[in-house]
Amino acid sequence: MAADPRFYPARGPVSLAEIAATAGARFGGDGARVFADVGSLAAAGPDEVAFLEGRRYAGALKTTRAGAVLVTADAEADVPEGCVALVCEAPQLGYARVAALFHPQPAPVPGIHPTAVIGPGATIGDGCEIGPYAVVGAGAEIGPGCILGPHAVVGPGCVLGAGSIIRAHASMVFCIAGAGVVLHEGARVGNEGFGFVTTKAGEHVTVPQIGRVILGDRVEIGASSCVDRGAAGDTVLGPGTRLDNQVQIGHNVKTGRGCVIVAQVGIAGSAELGDYVVLAAQSGLVGHITVGSGARVGAQAGVMNDVPAGTDVVGSPAWPAREFMRAMARLRKLGAPKRNGKTGETP
Amino acid sequence: MAADPRFYPARGPVSLAEIAATAGARFGGDGARVFADVGSLAAAGPDEVAFLEGRRYAGALKTTRAGAVLVTADAEADVPEGCVALVCEAPQLGYARVAALFHPQPAPVPGIHPTAVIGPGATIGDGCEIGPYAVVGAGAEIGPGCILGPHAVVGPGCVLGAGSIIRAHASMVFCIAGAGVVLHEGARVGNEGFGFVTTKAGEHVTVPQIGRVILGDRVEIGASSCVDRGAAGDTVLGPGTRLDNQVQIGHNVKTGRGCVIVAQVGIAGSAELGDYVVLAAQSGLVGHITVGSGARVGAQAGVMNDVPAGTDVVGSPAWPAREFMRAMARLRKLGAPKRNGKTGETP
Amino acid sequence: MAADPRFYPARGPVSLAEIAATAGARFGGDGARVFADVGSLAAAGPDEVAFLEGRRYAGALKTTRAGAVLVTADAEADVPEGCVALVCEAPQLGYARVAALFHPQPAPVPGIHPTAVIGPGATIGDGCEIGPYAVVGAGAEIGPGCILGPHAVVGPGCVLGAGSIIRAHASMVFCIAGAGVVLHEGARVGNEGFGFVTTKAGEHVTVPQIGRVILGDRVEIGASSCVDRGAAGDTVLGPGTRLDNQVQIGHNVKTGRGCVIVAQVGIAGSAELGDYVVLAAQSGLVGHITVGSGARVGAQAGVMNDVPAGTDVVGSPAWPAREFMRAMARLRKLGAPKRNGKTGETP
Repeated sequence: MAADPRFYPARGPVSLAEIAATAGARFGGDGARVFADVGSLAAAGPDEVAFLEGRRYAGALKTTRAGAVLVTADAEADVPEGCVALVCEAPQLGYARVAALFHPQPAPVPGIHPTAVIGPGATIGDGCEIGPYAVVGAGAEIGPGCILGPHAVVGPGCVLGAGSIIRAHASMVFCIAGAGVVLHEGARVGNEGFGFVTTKAGEHVTVPQIGRVILGDRVEIGASSCVDRGAAGDTVLGPGTRLDNQVQIGHNVKTGRGCVIVAQVGIAGSAELGDYVVLAAQSGLVGHITVGSGARVGAQAGVMNDVPAGTDVVGSPAWPAREFMRAMARLRKLGAPKRNGKTGETP
Repeated sequence: MAADPRFYPARGPVSLAEIAATAGARFGGDGARVFADVGSLAAAGPDEVAFLEGRRYAGALKTTRAGAVLVTADAEADVPEGCVALVCEAPQLGYARVAALFHPQPAPVPGIHPTAVIGPGATIGDGCEIGPYAVVGAGAEIGPGCILGPHAVVGPGCVLGAGSIIRAHASMVFCIAGAGVVLHEGARVGNEGFGFVTTKAGEHVTVPQIGRVILGDRVEIGASSCVDRGAAGDTVLGPGTRLDNQVQIGHNVKTGRGCVIVAQVGIAGSAELGDYVVLAAQSGLVGHITVGSGARVGAQAGVMNDVPAGTDVVGSPAWPAREFMRAMARLRKLGAPKRNGKTGETP
Repeated sequence: MAADPRFYPARGPVSLAEIAATAGARFGGDGARVFADVGSLAAAGPDEVAFLEGRRYAGALKTTRAGAVLVTADAEADVPEGCVALVCEAPQLGYARVAALFHPQPAPVPGIHPTAVIGPGATIGDGCEIGPYAVVGAGAEIGPGCILGPHAVVGPGCVLGAGSIIRAHASMVFCIAGAGVVLHEGARVGNEGFGFVTTKAGEHVTVPQIGRVILGDRVEIGASSCVDRGAAGDTVLGPGTRLDNQVQIGHNVKTGRGCVIVAQVGIAGSAELGDYVVLAAQSGLVGHITVGSGARVGAQAGVMNDVPAGTDVVGSPAWPAREFMRAMARLRKLGAPKRNGKTGETP
């Protein structure tokens, strides 16, 4: 089943040779053969390219009707008769690149919609697409080749680097963003952090939040995610870091490069992540802790202490994963019916 | 206390006979007596109709000043003197229908606001109400009798079935929606899912997400909830499925009919729910699992494995509810002060 | 490092005497000396004022280059040579007030943007700043000195008290709000709550939600947070209560004064909080429970029962904190490797 042409007019056809070159794959057969689209193993047809990486969908490979499949060498023998094996080291990565041949990220359609409001002193780079009801504040600088979707807001003084995208309803304020940054629908960047002091009489007095958000190149912020600006000094997301939807980043959080922060994670103020940290869905980090590079935090974990680089932690409070699994197994035995007057615990 | 007429001008008065017929209730007394509004047991006055279902508010029934109360037969004797008992099988359902007599869902006020932007080739059905700053993309199809609130966005090529509502600031892109669908304020449907592959050098490469969101008839998406489109193939919510606020639905999730997904739940990609599954608040499901029809997942649960139909699971990792409760009781005993050198555990 | 003048043109200079008077601090030296800005201990320069409260940053005090530091008396001796000690009881509170001398909350720039849509019968108070594409519904009443940001929505009939702020993309409907209320970016107030009844045939029938949201003076709602209106009767947030980002408040929740609700908390319908209750990040409360004044709920807790005033609870299900910590320590021992055939549990 091809991508719905109502939404994804395919840019094909593309030759097998170009597909293979793009994916860094070897193949046998006629390189001039053309393909119309990509598809999943289960649904692709003879003019579509699929992929298999890992074991989860291995069964689907044997019955696929795809015309070609990106595979690792060890799966080559399972590619059905009549289907071209595109053998490479990293099939999913190859698929990502091949899919972009058929469905490239739409280029900006240059132009500023007549309803867009551009403030005094704001500059819009060459080739930008500024959509209906977008609002660009005074003195903001939008780099070349950016796309602002309907109702996008870029606050006064903000800087947005080349080739960035602000999708519908997203907003950035008090923010300096690099190139290739993406704010997905309804993302909120630069909001005032949750900073106040309570008097003896019980009145909450706001601490002026006078920092910024700094987004490195290629940072992506998911739909409805929130990144608060710094209280004094900045909230910084390092190059390539990606936030899924509904993530909350508190003031003065800092991340290194390429961190992966999955949906509904919350990171409290001043926590710091190294490079390539992975925070699984719905996990939470208290403030002022450090999570070292390459560490991984499990889904729904509650991290209350520093995590050394390269460590996996799970649970709430978070523990090293190995210990947690062992303890949970023993706890379940506590839940078993008693036998001979004892709980189910192994004697 | 009637509903505030500033917001809810009541459409009454309505006769007791009509109220009873609407609720499928029997009653004694003059069917021509009229009522002005509905209200709660605690606050309703003599010209208002309340309801009691279950035991939680049973005490409030005895002291209510409501003029009439929808009750089950077993509570009829507790209805105060002078208050009309409207006896039926399902009082709350009856109340829902009676309340709609006084406060019907506002019908669309047909017309397209002069500030709405309607793209080339888009079609707007008869009797639609398109509000200020709504944006309808090229080739989109809005069915008859729809309401688009202020700043609503319907992306290019989308289809919205008859009698649907997109409230203020909500957006749908890459989406085909049935009839009677409701997107509440700030809902985000069709966003790009969290799909990328990481190279050895640590660069995250986006996998083009070329699927859609399919919303069945009468699906409702709560405020600020997010439903990502499919990576290849679709994310599908079956007819009557309702999402509360701040729910996250990952790419290629599928649900059957009438699922109930409470606030702040997260469902990871490719998980599949049967019919009438209930996911309580803040629970999370990993990807690629199956939750059978009629299963119920407890609040804050973390579901990591398939759940058989009709099963209740709780905890993180989620366990059958019965085992979990027993184990937690024993765990609490571990927390009790020691007596005679032993923990509090039952010997 | 001063606040970035691109975003925060400093309103200084301000004299030491005025700074001290604002903070209620004593000091030695020339009160006419002027300062340019505030800053953090680590980054401030000789013309900037910092603060130290508590021990976390005590080391940074000794090496600070700040020209003056707000401290408690016990830290006065650690203030470096040449740096002015501003001694007071509550340094962070003093800092909040001093920072506002340099960076006051921007006053409204009075005027209604030509693109704002003001409905029939709506009234806008003196000195309001109504931004581009704001939409104010019929009969709404905006008090004097309010700010509505780009795309802000105030629904028909709503009331907004003096000096309030609705930031970009936020919406309030069916709401009566006091003075000094702030809705941060993308906040959603007044949405229809998750109220429906299911028929035997499996159809979900909406219960009309005919209540309102009442926001007391100085209530703040964080970015992307949602506050549902009452089903019958109101959802009420007491004066000074503050919600962080991505909080979900269900229909008919009530809070007292000054509650602090941290990011990603969820409170189910009809729960009631007293005064100054603190709910830490990602915690959840079931419906219909009462949390007494001054109680504190731990991060990620799941509160299923009433919490007495002044009590701290943690865990899911939530327990008194002391018991929980003891039990978790014993649980971890269950996870330790066995020695001599026994688990690590203390005999």
